[in-house]
Amino acid sequence: MSSMKRIIECVPNFSEGRNPENIEKIVAPFRGKKDVKLLDYQTDEDHNRMVVTAVGGPEGLKAAVIEAMGCAIDVIDMRVHEGQHPRMGATDVVPFIPIKNVSVEETIAFSKEIAEEVARKYSLPIFLYEKSASRPERQNLAHIRKGQFEAMATKIKQPEWKPDFGPQKIHPSAGVTAMGARMPLVAYNVNLDSSNLEIANEIARKVRHISGGLRYCKGIGIELKDRGLVQVSMNMTDYTRTALYRVFELIKIEARHYGVNVVGSEIVGLVPMQALMDTAAYYLGLENFSVDQVLESRIWE
Amino acid sequence: MSSMKRIIECVPNFSEGRNPENIEKIVAPFRGKKDVKLLDYQTDEDHNRMVVTAVGGPEGLKAAVIEAMGCAIDVIDMRVHEGQHPRMGATDVVPFIPIKNVSVEETIAFSKEIAEEVARKYSLPIFLYEKSASRPERQNLAHIRKGQFEAMATKIKQPEWKPDFGPQKIHPSAGVTAMGARMPLVAYNVNLDSSNLEIANEIARKVRHISGGLRYCKGIGIELKDRGLVQVSMNMTDYTRTALYRVFELIKIEARHYGVNVVGSEIVGLVPMQALMDTAAYYLGLENFSVDQVLESRIWE
Repeated sequence: MSSMKRIIECVPNFSEGRNPENIEKIVAPFRGKKDVKLLDYQTDEDHNRMVVTAVGGPEGLKAAVIEAMGCAIDVIDMRVHEGQHPRMGATDVVPFIPIKNVSVEETIAFSKEIAEEVARKYSLPIFLYEKSASRPERQNLAHIRKGQFEAMATKIKQPEWKPDFGPQKIHPSAGVTAMGARMPLVAYNVNLDSSNLEIANEIARKVRHISGGLRYCKGIGIELKDRGLVQVSMNMTDYTRTALYRVFELIKIEARHYGVNVVGSEIVGLVPMQALMDTAAYYLGLENFSVDQVLESRIWE
Repeated sequence: MSSMKRIIECVPNFSEGRNPENIEKIVAPFRGKKDVKLLDYQTDEDHNRMVVTAVGGPEGLKAAVIEAMGCAIDVIDMRVHEGQHPRMGATDVVPFIPIKNVSVEETIAFSKEIAEEVARKYSLPIFLYEKSASRPERQNLAHIRKGQFEAMATKIKQPEWKPDFGPQKIHPSAGVTAMGARMPLVAYNVNLDSSNLEIANEIARKVRHISGGLRYCKGIGIELKDRGLVQVSMNMTDYTRTALYRVFELIKIEARHYGVNVVGSEIVGLVPMQALMDTAAYYLGLENFSVDQVLESRIWE
């Protein structure tokens, strides 16, 4: 049945955001490949960095990623790379995100399979991160990348920084790469009818994970000066475990304490269909609802 | 930009549900055509009828429908047709449903374009119905079809039953066809914690259009004997005008009067993504949300 088609998203970050020819060489492997779709690529000259967004079936995506990483090694020399964004490799980081008919576990396995292959093929050290991490301290990309390319030649020699795949020395021109599975992020903001930033910050502290709130929620208070409002601005790091409606209802409850009201919310950028299906299903008390009942999911398969 | 791809759904009903060879001949034009996807076809031997569900861009769909109607004329003879379902033509009725980047108005125009062409090509009388109807009394298919194939030779001679396209006499073997644009139907049921069918019926009367309720809602009470519950069982005939959450909240309000509670709801069969997006957006108070933000809508374009 066609509904079993598997889709993974890949958002590799490359350390090239200036030279158009090099950019095109790195992006090219994601074009015109069977079962792979290049959704977007954004370059930043100040960062000297490019973020590619592609989706596809495991096989096609694997071939495209490996090829693109080879192109990055060909055209980028980290020894002369300059840019404002922290970076440690020609291909800096490669997250894989389960989108459809793929479990997190399968995505982790997929990321390790690619990591093993690129490490061998290019003699490139790979650190597994996020859900693929081999130890807790490697979940966090910032922690792996600390010191950046310049410090990595020394850092990698320490026993605790032995890479998960590849040699225990940096690739001379391409450095090292982090690779792993993560859930889709949803940028979700809830607006309050108050201009008091401290209230938004206090509510953010109550609902976010780090200070006692929901497991897959990061958040801060933000001032929307032109509207005279404040906002709890969040990153939902796993909407399948911490649902949007749960944080929305929780903020409504916390807001009462300050005598303020939730006046609306917003999703910034992309959101997986399932996140909003779960929301609709919760509020309507839907029984036995499946995403296969969505007309478009039949059409688009 | 690829997001402007237009998609129309077509659900033609043919008066053949028994002969596999004939069935395949009629379905064949929807297969393997560029830009057309056959989603489903269901045959019923008792009804001696087949319902085809296909989606596609206007051009491809137009060609497929016209070809399939020609095949139906070739293989079906209404003079010898028997079946339990009311019918008036070899191709009985052809609804067109706007799905993506197509307005109702454009779908009406599209249905008329096809009606004009098949009428001319096959000397087949066409009645425009639903949103394409040329007069109010032709909106209702049952009204057009009253008397069925057997009465149609006489009925069509009456001035008020002059067809919208084609000759004012039936096609000898293929009868007449109704054709028109309609919105997608959503079968939506709301469950009550009561075993009293009369309560479900009374609430249905309050929320459905015909007896004073919401404009695009049809509904009746139903008993779910095995669960000891009753249900308000509805057809939402235009979810863009009468939203699912509106009828859900209204039923909650009406249920209070009887001291019963809404315990859940269900969507039967397919539902357009937008109907559930609207629901999520309502309950979360989403500002400036667009269906283009749904990740899958980017992938599947």
